[in-house]
Amino acid sequence: MEKIPVGILGATGMVGQKYVRLLSDHPWFRVAYVAASPRSAGKPYSGAVAGRWHVDGSLNLSTDGGWGPGVGSLIVEDANDVSKALAARNGGRCSFVFSALEMGKEDIKNLEEAYAAAGIPVVSNASAHRWTGDVPMLIAEVNPHHADIIPLQRKNRGWDKGFIVVKPNCSIQSYTTPLWALIWEGYEIKRLSVTTMQAVSGAGYPGVPSWDMIDNLVPYIGGEEEKSEQEPLKIFGSIGDGAFINAAEPKISAHCNRVPVSDGHTACVSLEFGAKKPSIDEVKRIWADFRALPQEENFPTAPLRPIILREEADRPQPRKDRDAGGGMAVTVGRIRPCPVFDLRFTGLSHNTVRGAAGGGILNAELLTYKGYLS
Amino acid sequence: MEKIPVGILGATGMVGQKYVRLLSDHPWFRVAYVAASPRSAGKPYSGAVAGRWHVDGSLNLSTDGGWGPGVGSLIVEDANDVSKALAARNGGRCSFVFSALEMGKEDIKNLEEAYAAAGIPVVSNASAHRWTGDVPMLIAEVNPHHADIIPLQRKNRGWDKGFIVVKPNCSIQSYTTPLWALIWEGYEIKRLSVTTMQAVSGAGYPGVPSWDMIDNLVPYIGGEEEKSEQEPLKIFGSIGDGAFINAAEPKISAHCNRVPVSDGHTACVSLEFGAKKPSIDEVKRIWADFRALPQEENFPTAPLRPIILREEADRPQPRKDRDAGGGMAVTVGRIRPCPVFDLRFTGLSHNTVRGAAGGGILNAELLTYKGYLS
Amino acid sequence: MEKIPVGILGATGMVGQKYVRLLSDHPWFRVAYVAASPRSAGKPYSGAVAGRWHVDGSLNLSTDGGWGPGVGSLIVEDANDVSKALAARNGGRCSFVFSALEMGKEDIKNLEEAYAAAGIPVVSNASAHRWTGDVPMLIAEVNPHHADIIPLQRKNRGWDKGFIVVKPNCSIQSYTTPLWALIWEGYEIKRLSVTTMQAVSGAGYPGVPSWDMIDNLVPYIGGEEEKSEQEPLKIFGSIGDGAFINAAEPKISAHCNRVPVSDGHTACVSLEFGAKKPSIDEVKRIWADFRALPQEENFPTAPLRPIILREEADRPQPRKDRDAGGGMAVTVGRIRPCPVFDLRFTGLSHNTVRGAAGGGILNAELLTYKGYLS
Amino acid sequence: MEKIPVGILGATGMVGQKYVRLLSDHPWFRVAYVAASPRSAGKPYSGAVAGRWHVDGSLNLSTDGGWGPGVGSLIVEDANDVSKALAARNGGRCSFVFSALEMGKEDIKNLEEAYAAAGIPVVSNASAHRWTGDVPMLIAEVNPHHADIIPLQRKNRGWDKGFIVVKPNCSIQSYTTPLWALIWEGYEIKRLSVTTMQAVSGAGYPGVPSWDMIDNLVPYIGGEEEKSEQEPLKIFGSIGDGAFINAAEPKISAHCNRVPVSDGHTACVSLEFGAKKPSIDEVKRIWADFRALPQEENFPTAPLRPIILREEADRPQPRKDRDAGGGMAVTVGRIRPCPVFDLRFTGLSHNTVRGAAGGGILNAELLTYKGYLS
Repeated sequence: MEKIPVGILGATGMVGQKYVRLLSDHPWFRVAYVAASPRSAGKPYSGAVAGRWHVDGSLNLSTDGGWGPGVGSLIVEDANDVSKALAARNGGRCSFVFSALEMGKEDIKNLEEAYAAAGIPVVSNASAHRWTGDVPMLIAEVNPHHADIIPLQRKNRGWDKGFIVVKPNCSIQSYTTPLWALIWEGYEIKRLSVTTMQAVSGAGYPGVPSWDMIDNLVPYIGGEEEKSEQEPLKIFGSIGDGAFINAAEPKISAHCNRVPVSDGHTACVSLEFGAKKPSIDEVKRIWADFRALPQEENFPTAPLRPIILREEADRPQPRKDRDAGGGMAVTVGRIRPCPVFDLRFTGLSHNTVRGAAGGGILNAELLTYKGYLS
Repeated sequence: MEKIPVGILGATGMVGQKYVRLLSDHPWFRVAYVAASPRSAGKPYSGAVAGRWHVDGSLNLSTDGGWGPGVGSLIVEDANDVSKALAARNGGRCSFVFSALEMGKEDIKNLEEAYAAAGIPVVSNASAHRWTGDVPMLIAEVNPHHADIIPLQRKNRGWDKGFIVVKPNCSIQSYTTPLWALIWEGYEIKRLSVTTMQAVSGAGYPGVPSWDMIDNLVPYIGGEEEKSEQEPLKIFGSIGDGAFINAAEPKISAHCNRVPVSDGHTACVSLEFGAKKPSIDEVKRIWADFRALPQEENFPTAPLRPIILREEADRPQPRKDRDAGGGMAVTVGRIRPCPVFDLRFTGLSHNTVRGAAGGGILNAELLTYKGYLS
Repeated sequence: MEKIPVGILGATGMVGQKYVRLLSDHPWFRVAYVAASPRSAGKPYSGAVAGRWHVDGSLNLSTDGGWGPGVGSLIVEDANDVSKALAARNGGRCSFVFSALEMGKEDIKNLEEAYAAAGIPVVSNASAHRWTGDVPMLIAEVNPHHADIIPLQRKNRGWDKGFIVVKPNCSIQSYTTPLWALIWEGYEIKRLSVTTMQAVSGAGYPGVPSWDMIDNLVPYIGGEEEKSEQEPLKIFGSIGDGAFINAAEPKISAHCNRVPVSDGHTACVSLEFGAKKPSIDEVKRIWADFRALPQEENFPTAPLRPIILREEADRPQPRKDRDAGGGMAVTVGRIRPCPVFDLRFTGLSHNTVRGAAGGGILNAELLTYKGYLS
Repeated sequence: MEKIPVGILGATGMVGQKYVRLLSDHPWFRVAYVAASPRSAGKPYSGAVAGRWHVDGSLNLSTDGGWGPGVGSLIVEDANDVSKALAARNGGRCSFVFSALEMGKEDIKNLEEAYAAAGIPVVSNASAHRWTGDVPMLIAEVNPHHADIIPLQRKNRGWDKGFIVVKPNCSIQSYTTPLWALIWEGYEIKRLSVTTMQAVSGAGYPGVPSWDMIDNLVPYIGGEEEKSEQEPLKIFGSIGDGAFINAAEPKISAHCNRVPVSDGHTACVSLEFGAKKPSIDEVKRIWADFRALPQEENFPTAPLRPIILREEADRPQPRKDRDAGGGMAVTVGRIRPCPVFDLRFTGLSHNTVRGAAGGGILNAELLTYKGYLS
């Protein structure tokens, strides 16, 4: 099978760089188009990221010390200029784009729509369209069926081949899949109290000053608690008459903290079930056994086990567990009863892999499988 | 007024050292007796802590570069040998002891009782006697009246001058005083969900390995969640017929995490009131105005304001706020409604000052004021 | 004695804030004038730093929980507008200024000269004038006599009352005073190899991104090695015919690294003496005994001992020793022979106290003592 | 080719665990024997490391979330009991052993000799035999010819098949190979001043307390400076009449510091050449082109490029560069002239891969290639 040529919008930022790294040996996709701000446009990608390559290792070096991916020699285009991407598409160099744009929310909204209107599907990492009614917010293991609103979205907008899908915020990925696994087995979740301890890479670069992260933590991340409380409701919701209908539950309260960790968001979760309450053993069994469409159909980026259960008293820990399942698994531990609600656990996921670029790539694999990107 | 000579049991450990530092210019007390393990016994204190002085600065140097406290030349006694302390008491060198013992729980229990039985009051930092029915667990601003069980305790045990008082675990100090201020104003608290992010000094020395605290956190601290869920109930309880009766509420659920912070425990708290619910403004007013006996009577270690309110979105932070009120105040911030319960906030206190040595000293000031240590 | 009213230029930045904090109870000086960028001008100082107060504690709170310094209510002026400072001077509110300006080097140079020309002495923390021939670069314990170029500087420029003095870069403060103590005793130092491990506060705020300081260090700080290699030569130099003449030695090689430490620069130093070589014991004696003008004349900010000797194998350490002597002492340890040169040691100083605001204040005390600021 | 069965002594410690991880899919070797302290003996390996598995991920989980290496079910033997290893060898389960023993130096010395005397070759990570005259201290790219002392060693001791080889201390690996590349090209190195900033994993587990590594560094590591100054001389030396003869140069001065980094030792190096001095460009060319036996013969653990040159001003950095070449390459940067000596640079290597287990495995590959382990 010939690889599908893909583009990256915002390719020089932290998440854009992670897309480049993760796609460097992808079996289905190859990066053939990179776009960023006008400041970077016209430079070769290697020059545009020189001195600000934030991902491990060197762009120009593979991890064994050999030469790295050819993306370094691609010329960066201006992401605001959709015509460039269109030309690339027509030249067989850009079937769809991953959006890792970093601009104002309205600007991103308009620009992503312009790409879609021009016939270029947008698999977005940005928050701009998360609450657009006919745009699905996908976690491939949780709500893959939400992708099927795409025909309706196209019809609503009068778009032919283009469309927009988004992924949720990184902060909710450490517990949404475990919650879904329980809901899927028929256990209603009524209320949820979650406290997150989030890595600094979630704030991009330069992001959080080191002055605030040495011998310290910051008990606030702007906008993060609102996202954490609302996004799961869309993901757990259903396709209504032309737009998504949010789930009514669970009611969520979030405390979001920034902690001195480079990658990996940890969440301490307490939850209340409906009338039907699983035992702790049943919860463990459900999580250990959980498999979904990405696993059943062997999507290349899918972890063998989307939820990894750790029985040790002191796990998961971010540095030690964030790379589980290639950074795509959610690791859960400390599963125990809650004196106030019913169940407590700690969940962890890699915020720039599962929570950003890796999650976007898995969504693109899902859309390829479903035929929307061919 | 002549200073009261005091002893420190476990004087060479991390909390013991903090007692030495905090008492170095105390207006009521002077350290005149130090005891530790047999390994240290017989050495001058300065020699016993050489190479393992963990508190800021040097034992032998005052912070302005001059010579430090004379405690360095005291000879360390064996803490297991109560007769030494008794001799010191009779020689006017040890009116009472601060216990910062680090041994097995049963050993501490027995040893603290032996001191009390010998007529030497014990103001303890250890957890051993926290659940002994007639031993008060004191936070000077919250339950100073609990000290008045001492005559009964003496009677129960047939002790003459000795007695034992304890202080609670460091993990609960970042929210117990704020909760009490609300209860005191007539607001019942029914349920509480708390997630702590605790400093490494809480584990003593060597304590938590750095391998586990670089780019990492550990979502577990042995025994800490149980203490966090139970101790407030004794503190909020009442003196019954010969022993304390726990408060029935609030029901508490705790997630306790170790984070890479040297000093300062942070707690994210969500709580549910009874039928009567204060507004957010009322909560802020209550906390800003809260004063208790230590403030009214100007105890030397008492902070002017036991609860410091921060209005900035991103405070309290451990490195920046732990020293507020000389390390004795609780700083609260992020006061806001809770979608699941009623109220949310973040609380912070210094775990080795307010949560350990400083809290013990304030308890001793309370007991002096009440006449139990004269 | 009535306190001298002083101004702070760049009062809202990290070093400016440190000046405010350190001057809050100074016996000779009181902050009566604050100036910053046009963006802050017109606001009360408390409002101008709201949400970006980086120094420990709160501007509005003293460390015991009481109300803080009155500087919060001062209206911030535009630092570019010298006429404002002049009006303040004439109104008895600004006898001289501390410059903690953060702008382009040429802009600072011109602005500091404008203040001096207007008759307002400038005690600067900025690097702009360090290599101006008739501007002294002062460490009060090392080259206090360099202040005596001021009459010549005034004459050169045609200035009446104004003048400019600067202090050296923070990176050299951890070893320059110890070197001077040896030179003062007659030991020539020919060559010096120094590797620094510098705290992030040296880069201001936001400064170094936390992404670069978690589980990491950066082996480069722009311009720092050049400063470290050249500035000691001016400080050790002499006043020539109208300008300073650099010392010819030592020849210095510097490796400057940024490490995940909040405050406190550490330096590993190897040095080669001239023909006359002291023993290790003689070095220790010289450093322990070293006292200079600030100590002899009891300047309020002077540490009792400018060099504190630690004999433990593993000291100095930044978190534990940076506050020695109120942050104004240099702590040295690991004094031992060098297999390649003659002597090795590790030095440490607090980069925003001794290395910035505290050093500036001590310089102002020196200038007051010498009569230049009365 | 059938894989050679190997044993690991000290298999449950930090370095032992790293051997297990790195050998999990080695093309030549398979772990078939594990030995540790009597405390662990008799348990399956998975049980012996339960709750103290310090390497990333889980012993029982591969990184893609599937099941991990079968070594978990091996029964741990007592490392003191050589007869167990002998039985394993005779049963085809232990052709040679990697020694990652953690005991007293004399005990290790004797025990490693007992294995060798019993006919089991020992590829050691321990320091015990580094200064034994007829034991080679190998870096496979630097002195592979030193392995050829093995026949002499066997003859000296009367050993038949067994022998001992060691590897040097982790602290010197960040600069020894670059130095060698220069020496190999004919440039004498006379003197060397090196300051290291070493990761905490070098101290094993629990190792350095987090109290000492938060907002701090420690300017001392016991014994490390001596090793750093002496070991390169044996490695650069020659085989004499029955024992190694140390090189006379370079003269080395080392400052060794512990910094808050999990893995990766950084070294700031200044060096003086002999009469013949290469240009900076020549140094860069030599390092970029350097290849040695492991590269020429494609040893499985050999990095494609043993020295990776970074041109960015701020590299190498430990978190970002330690995994270069699979953790087996040395990354160098900041190559520039030295005002005191001739050349300065910063080198970095992964202390538990290149500096410990990975270096040991590469040595075993070298010995296999040379026929000593068949």
